[in-house]
Formats: sequence, C-alpha cells, structure tokens
Amino acid sequence: MKTTKKFQLSESEIPQRWYNIVADMPNRPKPLLNPQTREPLQPHEMEGLFAKDLVEQEFSAERWIDIPEEVINLYKIYRPTPLVRATALEKALDTPAKIFFKNESVSPVGSHKLNTALAQAYYNNKQGIKKLTTETGAGQWGSAMSIACQYFGIDLVVFMVKRSFEQKPYRKIVINSYGGQVHPSPTNLTEYGRKVLAQDPDCGGSLGMAISEAVEMAVTTPNTRYTLGSVLNHVLLHQTIIGLEAEKQMAMAGEYPDKVIACFGGGSNFSGISFPFLRHRLTDGTPTEFIAAEPAACPKLTRGKLEYDFGDTAGMTPLIPMYTLGHDFQPEQIHAAGLRYHGGGQLVSQLKADGYINSCAIEQEETFKAGLLFAKTEGIIPAPESTHAIAATIREALKAKENGKSEVILFNLSGHGLLDMGAYENYL
Amino acid sequence: MKTTKKFQLSESEIPQRWYNIVADMPNRPKPLLNPQTREPLQPHEMEGLFAKDLVEQEFSAERWIDIPEEVINLYKIYRPTPLVRATALEKALDTPAKIFFKNESVSPVGSHKLNTALAQAYYNNKQGIKKLTTETGAGQWGSAMSIACQYFGIDLVVFMVKRSFEQKPYRKIVINSYGGQVHPSPTNLTEYGRKVLAQDPDCGGSLGMAISEAVEMAVTTPNTRYTLGSVLNHVLLHQTIIGLEAEKQMAMAGEYPDKVIACFGGGSNFSGISFPFLRHRLTDGTPTEFIAAEPAACPKLTRGKLEYDFGDTAGMTPLIPMYTLGHDFQPEQIHAAGLRYHGGGQLVSQLKADGYINSCAIEQEETFKAGLLFAKTEGIIPAPESTHAIAATIREALKAKENGKSEVILFNLSGHGLLDMGAYENYL
Repeated sequence: MKTTKKFQLSESEIPQRWYNIVADMPNRPKPLLNPQTREPLQPHEMEGLFAKDLVEQEFSAERWIDIPEEVINLYKIYRPTPLVRATALEKALDTPAKIFFKNESVSPVGSHKLNTALAQAYYNNKQGIKKLTTETGAGQWGSAMSIACQYFGIDLVVFMVKRSFEQKPYRKIVINSYGGQVHPSPTNLTEYGRKVLAQDPDCGGSLGMAISEAVEMAVTTPNTRYTLGSVLNHVLLHQTIIGLEAEKQMAMAGEYPDKVIACFGGGSNFSGISFPFLRHRLTDGTPTEFIAAEPAACPKLTRGKLEYDFGDTAGMTPLIPMYTLGHDFQPEQIHAAGLRYHGGGQLVSQLKADGYINSCAIEQEETFKAGLLFAKTEGIIPAPESTHAIAATIREALKAKENGKSEVILFNLSGHGLLDMGAYENYL
Repeated sequence: MKTTKKFQLSESEIPQRWYNIVADMPNRPKPLLNPQTREPLQPHEMEGLFAKDLVEQEFSAERWIDIPEEVINLYKIYRPTPLVRATALEKALDTPAKIFFKNESVSPVGSHKLNTALAQAYYNNKQGIKKLTTETGAGQWGSAMSIACQYFGIDLVVFMVKRSFEQKPYRKIVINSYGGQVHPSPTNLTEYGRKVLAQDPDCGGSLGMAISEAVEMAVTTPNTRYTLGSVLNHVLLHQTIIGLEAEKQMAMAGEYPDKVIACFGGGSNFSGISFPFLRHRLTDGTPTEFIAAEPAACPKLTRGKLEYDFGDTAGMTPLIPMYTLGHDFQPEQIHAAGLRYHGGGQLVSQLKADGYINSCAIEQEETFKAGLLFAKTEGIIPAPESTHAIAATIREALKAKENGKSEVILFNLSGHGLLDMGAYENYL
C-alpha cells in the first residue's frame, strides 16, 4: 500500500527574495561579449532586447534580490508547490535511498516555467512594454509566457520550433487559449526566417533558429522586447524560488539532500532547484552532489566544449562563455524538445568547470521507462524532459542499494506530461 | 493586475468523514428495483456487482461515514484542494458577485474522480477482489480508476465509449500508462457488445452500452467486481469530501455561498460540492440555491421524466427512480463526453423533485466561450464538462450585476482540459 508524505508550506512561507549565486561563486563567469565588437557587453547594450530591470538582474552580483509583491501575489496561484517523499518509487526500487521530489507540475501551465514568465511579464509591463516575443521548443515556455502576458495585458508572439508545432498540436491550442499568437518557425515573418526557408523550405526548425526570429522581431518592432525561458542569469535567478522552498520543506522532513538532480536543457529548472542548496556547498562546504541529467542526443555539459558561443543559430545574441555543442548543432528529434538546446549557459558552465556540478547523458528509452515507473508509483505522468531527472534519480537510488547506502536524493519534477501523451504512445 | 486569493487548508484539516445526505432528506428516495422481479433490491443482490462495504454505503442512512485512514492517506497526494476567489473573472465580468471556485483539477489525473476511485479500489482490495471493470466516457473516470487500481495492485479493464476512444487518443494512453487495459466499446469481449456490433458494426457506443459491457464482464468473471464513477449513492458520498473542504474554506474567506453550481453528468461532482451545503438548507433552512449545469444536448434534470429506468442500455442494472431521458437515449456527440449520460440518479432526482435543486441546460457554444474567458482570467484551461459550471456561473454573475446584488457564488472546477485540447481547437 502506498503511503503519502507531502511537505506543504503555507503561502506566508513563500520566499520573499530570489537567490543570486553569482555572489558566492569562487570564479565569476567571464563576461558576455558583444557579437560585433567581441568586447565585454555593457548593460545598456542589452536594453533594446530586455526590460531594464531584467538587464540589471542579468549583471547583478547582489546575493539576494527582492521579489516584487505583485509577483509573489501571482506565485500564490500555484505556489508554494509540494515537496513529496516518493515512498512508492522507493519501494518499487527496493532502495535504502530516501527519494524526494519537488512538484513543479502543479502550476496551471504544468511546469516550472511560470516562475520566470510572471516575473518577466511584470518587469516588462512596469516599463510600459506592450509586446513581447519569444521562442518555444516543447511549448512549456510558450504556454507559461502567454498566460503571464495575458495577466498583464501584453501581446505575445511565440516562435515555436516547426517540428514541435506539428508533433504537439495541443500545445499551440493552449497558447492560443491563453491569448498568445504562435507561429511555426522558421516563418516568413522575419528576414532570418525567410533566408532559412529559401535555402530549405522543409526545414523543421530548432530552438536556436526560433530564438533568432524572436530576437529579430523584438529589435525591429517599436515598444517590443524579447523574453527567454532559460540560459540567462536573470531567468535562473527567478527559478531559485524552487530550491528556496525545497530547502524549507526538506527541513520540515528533517533531511538534507546528498544529491540534487534535475533535467538539463538550458539550465532553468536545474539551477532553480540546485543553486539554493549549492550555496551551502560554496559557503560552508556542505558536500551535496549536483547532477544535471541530459539527453544523450544533446549532451552539452557531458560532451560539449567550454568556449564562447552564440545563444542562437543566426549569431544575433551576445557571445556566451559556456559548454556548447556549437550553435549550429542539430540534435535528433527526441521527444524531450525542451532539452534540445546546444548550450549550457554562463553560470552553470562556470560552476561545472570549477567542479561543483556533474552531468550524465541518458538515452530516450531509459527515460521513458523511468517515467512510466514514476507514473505507476507516484501517480503523476511526467513531462518527457522531467523523465531524465527521474532516470538519473533511479540510477543513483540503485547505486545506493548496491552500496547499501541510505542517502537522500532530491529531484525536481519540472512538469507533467499530459500534453505529451503522443510521446508516451510512441514508447508504449 | 490580477490579485490572487487562495484559501488552503492544511493536511490535518482534511475531513475525516463523508457526509451522507440520505440522513437529512425529508423524503427518502424510492428503492432501487431488481430488474427481473421489479421488487425492491436487497443489499445482498448487489454484492456480486460491488464490494460489500460499498453496498453497505449504498443502502446506508447514517449521516456520517468514517473515511478509512488509508484513503485519507491517499487523498493527501492532492488534497486538500484549493478554494480560489476568481477575482480576475469577476473583474472581466464587472460583476458585484463574489465568485469562488473549488479547484479539483489539481489531482494527478486532473479531476475530482480520484476521490471515489481511491475509496472504491480500497474497499475492493480489502475484500480481496483482484480485478475490476468499469466504463468511461471522456476518460476522466477511467484514468482515475486505473491509477487507483495500480496503487492497490488490482487489474482494471476499462470499456471506453468508442467515439471518445477515437476522439481523445491521449486518454487511452494515460490509462495504459497507469497500467489499466482499455477497449473501445462496443467490443467483442462481451455477449452484449457482440450483439450490438452484429446489428451495427460502426456503432460509436455510449456510456450506457459501456456500462452494460463492464457489468457483464464483472458478473461473469471470478473474483471480479464492477465500479461506477457517478450516479450511485456511495459514489456521491465519497465526493462530499469536496464540499466538506469547501465549507471550511468558505469560512476562512468569511463567506457563505448564496449559490452553489456544478456541471451535471451523473451527479458526482455536483453532489460532492452541493450536499454538504445543502445539509444546512435541509436542517436549518439556510437559503442557498443549488444549480446543476447540464448540456443542452443531454438535459435529463431540465427536460427528463422522473420514473424508474435502467442505468445502462442493455437493462442489466437495477431500476433507478430518477429523472431520465430514457436508457436508450443517444445524445449528440458534444465534447463534454462526461455529461452524456441519460439519468440523474436516485438522490439528486428526489432532491430536485422536492424543490431543493435547480438545473439549467446550456448550449456547447456558450460553454466554450465561458471556458476560454476562465482560462484567460484565472489561468486554468477547464475540462469541457467543467465549462458548463463556468457558463452557469457567468449567467448568475451577470444577473447579479443587472440586479445590483452582491451575492456569493461557489462553483466546482471538476477538472482541467489539458487532455481535451482537440475540443478547444474545434471551437477556436
């Protein structure tokens, strides 16, 4: 018989500040570079692309940044999210490890993406921006951004990777239902998109291409800015709400994680759950291990090179010092479309280079098997992205069993898979 | 700007007893009849079909029935569910009415159906039953029952209305992912199914037919019982957890509902939210109005006749005294497949006959419009079934505006629509 152990905070316990790991990094990351001059990028150069407050956060080294009251108020729609002891999964694995997961799938869009979408819409609205552009792979980010924009009365244009647009028809309807516009990228709406289509009319698109299109439209349209769902420092900052809550909840459970695990696409859910715990390792040496679970088809941390690279395919973004597979890398069409990004971002890459973060690369078959075991034991069908975290957790839990070690594993359930049942159908 | 008002109970405040409205009804419903003899059905005659404890509940007139500790423990996976003040919807309607909704969509299967699925699986397991059968229309009930059976190690066979099986392919994958078997009904697995197919090989099925098949398989297979997701007294009983929680949460909000609204298929979510509030009207005259929102395509309470009728198409179930459109009624293929049932059940029908329950019938167009407004304001895409409750709520809120009345409306959001995006696509 299944037993349930859920650790739930009250609304008043929602953290009031985001944690900025830059303040505690032994080696600060190298600067972003202007793509034309190759000189360190100055904040004002980013202000045509992002809202001013977000640019300030991008360059900030303050340890704690206050969450605006309006954003906390919106977080209360679905936060605090539960921390759950996965007792049924433990039993199925017959492991001495204690497995906990933070359940970010309970947000109305079904993933953690709303944590930064609400903040980004808030700051853009504060500045009087009337229109935002963005890209989306699996559609989780596009869904989150479209309801966030709806709350603030901002128009949103989403460039969705064409292959995902076709594979996941329900996602575009979700975006439309929330009032967002969505186009299969590459499109005829941008110069870059037209160029790509001229060379390859059947191009299935990529996250990098969709970013190029969204950036181009933002900088060429009045009173418009661009928003990104991962990779950048300010995005990772907003996601630390996950780990800050989890820290309080692990304390309620009387435990502290030996291992923290999350899937890794551009780093937003991984950093969100990891950074608040990593701060203790950075400041007092608490020996927690942090594991980024990547798809074998797109293993930038595990097999990429640490070098300056563009965030998009066209080379319009600043150059980012990061582990990368190359900005023109075209990963296989795995179902975890949200993990099909070529680079690891500035913060995670530096922390990996300095030995604070480990990674592993997992084949799709293993991740779906893990996802189904999780569904049958814990009752939640995970997003294909999140199944990578579950597969890595199962690996660690089985290792613990082999070694007879009762360790504490915490993973982030970044989202549910109810809009990805086609992927499960293929697997089944 | 959207403001959020969510009223959240702690786990220790989950009600420990279900409420049985039979104890407080001024006129008890007429008895069920044995379909062969047309004599009042005796409890032992139902024990081949349902677990003993469930039969006892079906015939019980005890006011309060203890919820087994194991079921409460499983409820904690997703309960207590939030009560939310729909401030953004109120604003969009510019109404003086205060609108609250109970959010049952947060369960891992996305609807209230798990409240009784867990209880039914528990009692069957307690009795040593190894296999259960059931039917499902939209798939909400089949999904709930399959994870509940998985928790208790019981095999499940789901007969899913063939038209829904084809229209909602994701639902069957959800059921499979949880370990349930699912067949498009009518099937070749039962005598009744074969008879129907012989007459009409292309028959799209109906809930009534699927019930006939599930009942036949249950009574002809050793150590097997049947489970139903609505209509019967024990099912409605288990769902009162919704209203009992909501009662505490409305008190936290400092309000009491003038109107309680839910969509109506077989009565499970309607009774779940209504009966605990209706008990005050029955016992001390508190003047709350209760509104069952039906689809215009299947308006049994609004336009049906109160008479004895079968629960299924083949006439295998007991005869139930209820408002019915006739057990061979074939409603249009509306998207709210969960509301396409011909009868209103024993308890709700008696209460309606006695003037305690009102109903309204709403066209599909109006319900989807209401659902989209709710998605854009409150951020949750509702199930096609639940959009009926929202549409009825909007009608009442606009009436309140016309009359300048500041009344309090509570509705039940029975489920989310993330697996029904095809229906929204058709509407958009």
